[in-house]
Amino acid sequence: MTVPWRCCAGQEGIAVILRGNLIWTSPSGGLEVRRRAYLAADGEKVAGVWDALPPEYAGQPVEDWGEAVIIPAFCDLHIHAPQFPNRGVGYGLQLLDWLEGYTFPMEARFGDAGFAEKVWKAFLNRLWAGGTLRFSAFATVHSQATWRLMELAEASGLRGLVGKVNMDRNSPDSLREDTGRSLADTEELVCRAREELKHTGFILTPRFVPSTTERLMDGLGLLGEKYDLPVQSHLAENPSEVAWVRQLHPDVPGYAQVYERHGLLRRGRTIMAHCIYLLPEERALLKEREVTLAHCPASNADLASGIMPLRQYLAEGQRCCVASDVAGGHTAAMNRNAAAAAALSRLRWLDRREESPLTLAEALWLITGGPGSFLGRVGAFEPGYAFDALVIRPVPGDDLTDLSPEERLEQFLYDGDDRSIAARYCAGAPVEKPFSE
Amino acid sequence: MTVPWRCCAGQEGIAVILRGNLIWTSPSGGLEVRRRAYLAADGEKVAGVWDALPPEYAGQPVEDWGEAVIIPAFCDLHIHAPQFPNRGVGYGLQLLDWLEGYTFPMEARFGDAGFAEKVWKAFLNRLWAGGTLRFSAFATVHSQATWRLMELAEASGLRGLVGKVNMDRNSPDSLREDTGRSLADTEELVCRAREELKHTGFILTPRFVPSTTERLMDGLGLLGEKYDLPVQSHLAENPSEVAWVRQLHPDVPGYAQVYERHGLLRRGRTIMAHCIYLLPEERALLKEREVTLAHCPASNADLASGIMPLRQYLAEGQRCCVASDVAGGHTAAMNRNAAAAAALSRLRWLDRREESPLTLAEALWLITGGPGSFLGRVGAFEPGYAFDALVIRPVPGDDLTDLSPEERLEQFLYDGDDRSIAARYCAGAPVEKPFSE
Repeated sequence: MTVPWRCCAGQEGIAVILRGNLIWTSPSGGLEVRRRAYLAADGEKVAGVWDALPPEYAGQPVEDWGEAVIIPAFCDLHIHAPQFPNRGVGYGLQLLDWLEGYTFPMEARFGDAGFAEKVWKAFLNRLWAGGTLRFSAFATVHSQATWRLMELAEASGLRGLVGKVNMDRNSPDSLREDTGRSLADTEELVCRAREELKHTGFILTPRFVPSTTERLMDGLGLLGEKYDLPVQSHLAENPSEVAWVRQLHPDVPGYAQVYERHGLLRRGRTIMAHCIYLLPEERALLKEREVTLAHCPASNADLASGIMPLRQYLAEGQRCCVASDVAGGHTAAMNRNAAAAAALSRLRWLDRREESPLTLAEALWLITGGPGSFLGRVGAFEPGYAFDALVIRPVPGDDLTDLSPEERLEQFLYDGDDRSIAARYCAGAPVEKPFSE
Repeated sequence: MTVPWRCCAGQEGIAVILRGNLIWTSPSGGLEVRRRAYLAADGEKVAGVWDALPPEYAGQPVEDWGEAVIIPAFCDLHIHAPQFPNRGVGYGLQLLDWLEGYTFPMEARFGDAGFAEKVWKAFLNRLWAGGTLRFSAFATVHSQATWRLMELAEASGLRGLVGKVNMDRNSPDSLREDTGRSLADTEELVCRAREELKHTGFILTPRFVPSTTERLMDGLGLLGEKYDLPVQSHLAENPSEVAWVRQLHPDVPGYAQVYERHGLLRRGRTIMAHCIYLLPEERALLKEREVTLAHCPASNADLASGIMPLRQYLAEGQRCCVASDVAGGHTAAMNRNAAAAAALSRLRWLDRREESPLTLAEALWLITGGPGSFLGRVGAFEPGYAFDALVIRPVPGDDLTDLSPEERLEQFLYDGDDRSIAARYCAGAPVEKPFSE
């Protein structure tokens, strides 16, 4: 394998040009494989993909990664930053008991700025390590901690949306907010982020219907309108949760309609995690509102929540992605979450032969271009898309046989880890490990 | 964390004594947790566990691992060594097509001694890295390659059973054996292993019923009897496979009975992988024969085979373990295979509420004492058991909060990897990485 040029990459006036086995899923759904091809940046965006470098790039340094596989970097649209230390813990419980037993006590600690600092850095380091260079994260109810996560995200080289969590009912005393204060804190963060940050955005983050009063949801809906904000929350993850929402809102036909009634299904700007137990009317509403449904396969198996009918959703034209949902999900590694989604799709197929399992192209799309389309033109090597890329190389002991680039990709999704990622690029520039440990 | 003593461990006349948070599943099923306790070896075996070191150990060096968690090392009773390079590849196919498309072409390459050498070393290195210090592996049909795997296993410090695969029907030309030759080669390896190897044993390895003639199975059954050999094979993994066996043996009431008829269900000495689709009479027979049922959760999801009714088997007193089945399974990491077994048990529970999900104690047992009981007194920190241990420490960025030892263990099972394993001991001695890369 050729030693790559790194000296000039990302420097002012010099475009990044990568060479290797390029693989991505095109927005039309096919797996694109271009062996030993060139991928060039035009500022933050993809200029093009070529088998031979066009004359205008003559003399420019090329980072030649040999037979390595180069794919779009991963996006994770549903992850709880404060729950990062709880990965893999407490999976004997189901959602509501698990929130009480693990999640809320952990999140209550983020009033401590020193603890938050430590966790946020480890969190961003881990996203970087696993190749997740764009994300949408829940922080906690704490304004100060949320702002600090936004600052650190800005400094990291990653591109993120971060939300202060809102919760003012059915919550432990340590986390339950005053409604007016919750709204005021939120608005302040929205404004501050707009003024001070360039690459990190604010996303409205009501925890979920059971922990937000109608008055709070109304206020958040108005903020969404006022500042044209994206929204993220949870929807229909667990049967007990769905029953609880029905009990809290007997006058509303479904869980999704509660968000809708309060202006929180903002068209094309909303992420709803889980979406396992939806009524037909909810599905129609989500589609109409162009909501992105974040399938969290590891979490759904970890907390015995169920299996999302992903194939049905894809067939009916819903916008879908795969997300980690750390710490309901046990790993932030999006390759493993894509593999988990494929595994669950096969298990679902065992009982429902009309729902075909995910293909490799789809599994890749669901962690690149799928979530990327929520963020803009992100997640594919198409001209005008963000230049986000990961270089995947076999580690020692794994380069035993001549696998095709597609097979190398599949192997990385199933059994690779951060050690196989030799380089990471976000928005046209290489990204190094954000924080020392 | 105290810097551990390593200088004297494993040296002649000096017993290994470890101190840390000891966790294991007792043979009676409970999770044993002994904080900051001592574990001492008596030669290859566990001498005992104490909260304070008994006087007879006064002055002996103690490896103090501080707050690290120390657990029994892992055992993997179903893994295909030659398929190691194929991990994570080809999971768009189901069993029989996948065997034709991926497995057989790969195994045919093991007539090449150089290729075999490279793969075997990488395979053993990976087992070591993941903390799998005892195993039972399929090699290939090739005598020379099988023997070389046995020699390398012997040199590695791991303890393994290795079988030359037997297959003389329904196999590609490149792998199909002459029946007499297959038996003669097998017997030669049995004898050679007994003469030349101390810690590596031979295990009879008919691939599965569809690829072994009755004459071959009869011959292997006789060899089993003659040399009192263990046996490993596959059983009822996939509905098409089960239907094929029924078609091949219309006179035999079930798949398991075919093995039985040819003397291949040797009492207490047999491992049968998968066992998803069993008839009640087969279950009774397997129990009576004290067969170890190797549940391969990752493989069963990867190849869309199904979910083994593990809870039912445990309730009816079957001997069970969790195994990786690389490369039907995508990872040799037994922590992840235990987590996968727990996940599948929860998914099964969703539709069958009478089948309770695996507990943490059970998940640990199924990769330690469960498979260990097939190998002898292995897989628990009980006096007289083999002194096999792994020291689990959080990696940088993971030591963010005070998790209990049980929670640290759970986190390691779900999201840990070889980097969290600080030391490995097998049969009373530390084991270092077997081969350079």
